[in-house]
Amino acid sequence: MMRLSHLMLPDIEQAFAGDPESVRELFEDLHAEDVADIIERAPPHLAPELLAALSAERAADVLECIEPYRQVDLVQRMGVTRAVVIIEEMASDERADFVAELPHTFAESLLAAMDPEDRADVRSLVQWEDGTVGAVMTTDTLTVSVEMTVREVIERVRTVGEEAETVYYVYVVAGDDKLVGVVSLRDLILCKDDQAVAAIMVEDVKSIGPNEDQEEAATLIQHYDLIALPVVDAAYRLLGLVTIDDLVDVIAEEATEDMHRMAAVQPLDDSYFGTGFWTFVAKRAPWLVVLFIGGQFTANAMTWFDDVIKETAVLVLFLPLVISSGGNSGSQSAAIIIRALAVGEVDLSHAGKVFLREIGVGFVLGVLLALIGVIRALLGSGDGSLALTLGVTLTAVVTLGAVLGAMLPILLERLGLDPAVSSTPFIASLVDLLGIVTYFSLARALLM
Amino acid sequence: MMRLSHLMLPDIEQAFAGDPESVRELFEDLHAEDVADIIERAPPHLAPELLAALSAERAADVLECIEPYRQVDLVQRMGVTRAVVIIEEMASDERADFVAELPHTFAESLLAAMDPEDRADVRSLVQWEDGTVGAVMTTDTLTVSVEMTVREVIERVRTVGEEAETVYYVYVVAGDDKLVGVVSLRDLILCKDDQAVAAIMVEDVKSIGPNEDQEEAATLIQHYDLIALPVVDAAYRLLGLVTIDDLVDVIAEEATEDMHRMAAVQPLDDSYFGTGFWTFVAKRAPWLVVLFIGGQFTANAMTWFDDVIKETAVLVLFLPLVISSGGNSGSQSAAIIIRALAVGEVDLSHAGKVFLREIGVGFVLGVLLALIGVIRALLGSGDGSLALTLGVTLTAVVTLGAVLGAMLPILLERLGLDPAVSSTPFIASLVDLLGIVTYFSLARALLM
Repeated sequence: MMRLSHLMLPDIEQAFAGDPESVRELFEDLHAEDVADIIERAPPHLAPELLAALSAERAADVLECIEPYRQVDLVQRMGVTRAVVIIEEMASDERADFVAELPHTFAESLLAAMDPEDRADVRSLVQWEDGTVGAVMTTDTLTVSVEMTVREVIERVRTVGEEAETVYYVYVVAGDDKLVGVVSLRDLILCKDDQAVAAIMVEDVKSIGPNEDQEEAATLIQHYDLIALPVVDAAYRLLGLVTIDDLVDVIAEEATEDMHRMAAVQPLDDSYFGTGFWTFVAKRAPWLVVLFIGGQFTANAMTWFDDVIKETAVLVLFLPLVISSGGNSGSQSAAIIIRALAVGEVDLSHAGKVFLREIGVGFVLGVLLALIGVIRALLGSGDGSLALTLGVTLTAVVTLGAVLGAMLPILLERLGLDPAVSSTPFIASLVDLLGIVTYFSLARALLM
Repeated sequence: MMRLSHLMLPDIEQAFAGDPESVRELFEDLHAEDVADIIERAPPHLAPELLAALSAERAADVLECIEPYRQVDLVQRMGVTRAVVIIEEMASDERADFVAELPHTFAESLLAAMDPEDRADVRSLVQWEDGTVGAVMTTDTLTVSVEMTVREVIERVRTVGEEAETVYYVYVVAGDDKLVGVVSLRDLILCKDDQAVAAIMVEDVKSIGPNEDQEEAATLIQHYDLIALPVVDAAYRLLGLVTIDDLVDVIAEEATEDMHRMAAVQPLDDSYFGTGFWTFVAKRAPWLVVLFIGGQFTANAMTWFDDVIKETAVLVLFLPLVISSGGNSGSQSAAIIIRALAVGEVDLSHAGKVFLREIGVGFVLGVLLALIGVIRALLGSGDGSLALTLGVTLTAVVTLGAVLGAMLPILLERLGLDPAVSSTPFIASLVDLLGIVTYFSLARALLM
C-alpha cells in the first residue's frame, strides 16, 4: 500500500511553519488513518503540534488510528490540559485502552481532569481483563424501547446516532432494560414508518457475556456474518457491544499469537518495532532454554548407544537427516491441526478420526522418504543392513512425527490449554529423541 | 460454541416426516447459519428435502452458509429444476463461487436454465482468478446519481435496497458512471432531507481494482476501518464491491495459508475433512521430499569430518542438541518476521534495522544457551576444549539461525515471492548444515 505520508510530510512541515490553518484544512479532508500516518512519521516536536491543531473531535479520530506506544508518547508531550479535550471525544473502548497504556501518574491526572461521567466509563471499562470481550467492547450503544414505532426509532437514531459506535444495528430493550431484540438500520429504512419496531425486530439476538474470550466473539461474528455483537450480563441487560472492525483486529492478533506460539515465542504485546530489545529477548529465551534443556535427553540417549556409534560411524552421518525428517512431518501435522482447531474445522470429537488419518498419511509419507533414503544408502555404501535400518527408521519416525504433531494439540485442547503451545520445536524435540532411540536400537539389532 | 443442530436434529427428522410445514416455520425463525448447521448434519437423503422445503430466498441464504464441498453434493441431489430457483436468489459473489465449484456438465445445465441476466453475471464473475479481488466481489451494489438530494437517495435505498449486498454505503456516480463519492447510510439518516448528496458525500473514496490481490483489499479495509470497499476499473467505473464479512474469511484463510506454508505444507484448498486422503499426501509430500534431498547435504558435510568424528565420539552426542538449537532460534525469527510482513508492521525498507536487531537478539540468546551448554559439558566430561567448542558453536549457530530466519522471508518478499514459503523446516535444514560445519571445524581446530 502506498503511504501518503512519504509524499506529503516535507511539504506539510513547511506549510505548517508558514500557514498552520492550511494544514488544518488539508487534515480535515483526508481520511483519519492517513492523517495518523503523517503524524506518526513527523518529527517528535512537530507531531503533538499537528495533533493539537485539529478540532478535538477530529484529533480523537486520528489518535485512535495511532499505534498504542506512540499514542502515549504523543499525548504526554501535549500535556494534560490539551490532551483531556481530545480524550473525551474518543470512542469509549479506544479511550479505555489508551488510558490503560499510560503511566499510572499521568493516567490519574488525566482522569482527574475528565468529565465525571467519562471518568466513570473509563474506570468501568478498564476493569475487564485483557483478552476478554469486556476489554474490546464499547459502551456507546444505541437502544430503543420495544414500544416505539419505526418512525420513532429513526427519529431517535437521528438525535443520538452521532454518539453511537454503530447505528447499523439498533438494540431493542424492554422496560427492565432487558435486551429483547435487534433491528438493522437496513430493515428500518425498508419498512413502513408506522409499524411497531416489535413487529420487525429479530428476537433471536446473538449475544455474548463480557467475561468470554474475545476469540469466541470473533467466531460468533464470523459464523453469523454480523457487523456487531451485543454484550449482555447474566440478567440479559445490554452492557455494550463489540464491532466487526475491532474483531478483525482480534482475528489477526489471534493468528499472530498462534504463529508465535507454534514457533516457541511468547506472543509479543506490541508490534515488532514497538517491542524493546530486552522484552524481545525475554519473549524468546524461556522456550529456547526449555527446549535446550529438554534436548539434553537426546545427548543422554546417544550415550546409551555409545557402542553402536563407535562400531559403525557411518550411521552417524545420516542422523541429522533422519531426525529432521521426523521433525518436518511433525510440524506439518501440528500446523494443520492447530489451525483447524482454531477455525473450528476440527474439534475434540474428531480425535479418533484425526488419529487414523495421520497414521495413514504419515505412513505413506514415511515410506516415500524411506524409498529415497534406501536407494541413496545402497548407491552410497552398498550396505544392505544400513539401508534397511535407515528405511525402517525413516518410516517409523515420519509416521510418529505425523501422529504426535496432530495429537499433541488435540490433547492440549482437551486439557483446556492453548493447542498452539505444543509448538513445532517441542514436537520436533520429542521426535528427535524417539528417532535416536529407534535408529540406534535397530542398528544394534541389525548391524552388530 | 454450542451447536443447535446437536440438540435439534433428531426432533426435526421426526417432525419433518409427520408435518413438514412446522419444520419450514421453525427454519424461517432460526438464523440461516443455524439452519445450515442442521442441514449439514442431516442424513444425505433428508438434506436436499429440507432445503427444498424452504422458500427460494431463504434456501439461498442457507445455502450460502454451507461449506462448498457439501453445497455441491446437496444441489446435485436436488436436480437442476429445483436448484435453479434457489441459485437465482443467491448473492452474486456466493453464486459465482458456487457455480465455479460444480462439475462442468452440471454447471452448464444450471446456467442454461438460469435467467439470461443472472447467467451473464455469473459468467462475468467466474472469469476472475482465485485470490483476486474480482473473485470475492459482489455486483449487487447500490449506486445513486450525484445530482440527487438526500431524500431522493433514501427513497432509492428503500426501493432497491432489498437487492443490494449492503445499504450501509451508497456509492455516488456521475453521468459517465464514474465513481465520485460515497455516503454512509448513517450520514444520510443524520442529515437534512433536502441537502444535495454531493454536499455530504466523501470524495476521497478508497477503492481497489479487480485484479489486485484480495489480501490487499483486506489490508485496506482493516487500515481504514471500512465495512465495504468499492471495486473500480481503470476508468474509475464501479464494477462491484467487497464487504468486510467476505474479507474476514480472507484474513483467516491467508493466516491459515501462511501457517501451512511455514510448516512446509502446500495450502489446502478445503477444510481438514473436506480434503481427501491422497490430496492430503500430495500437499505434504513435495516439500518433505525437497527437504529430505536437501538434507543429504548434512550427511555429505559430515563425511568431511570423518576423522574428527572417529577421534572424538563424544562430540556426536551433542550434535542433535546443537543443530536443533539453531533451528529453534531460526523458526522463532521466521515466525515473527513472516507475520510482521503479513500485517504490515515490517516492510522491505526495514531490512537493515531487522538485520541488526536479529544479530543482537540472536547473540544474546546464543550466549545464554552456550553458558548452559558449557556448564553441562564441564560437569559431564570436565573437558575444557569440548566445552569451548560447544559454547562457541552454540553462540554462532543460534545467532546465525536468528539472522537467517529473519532475513530469508525479507529476501523472498523482495523477490516478489511469498515470504511464508521460506518455511521453518527449510531454515532449520540450512542451519543444520551450517551448524555441522561450524561444530566440526571448530572441533578439528581445538580438539585434534
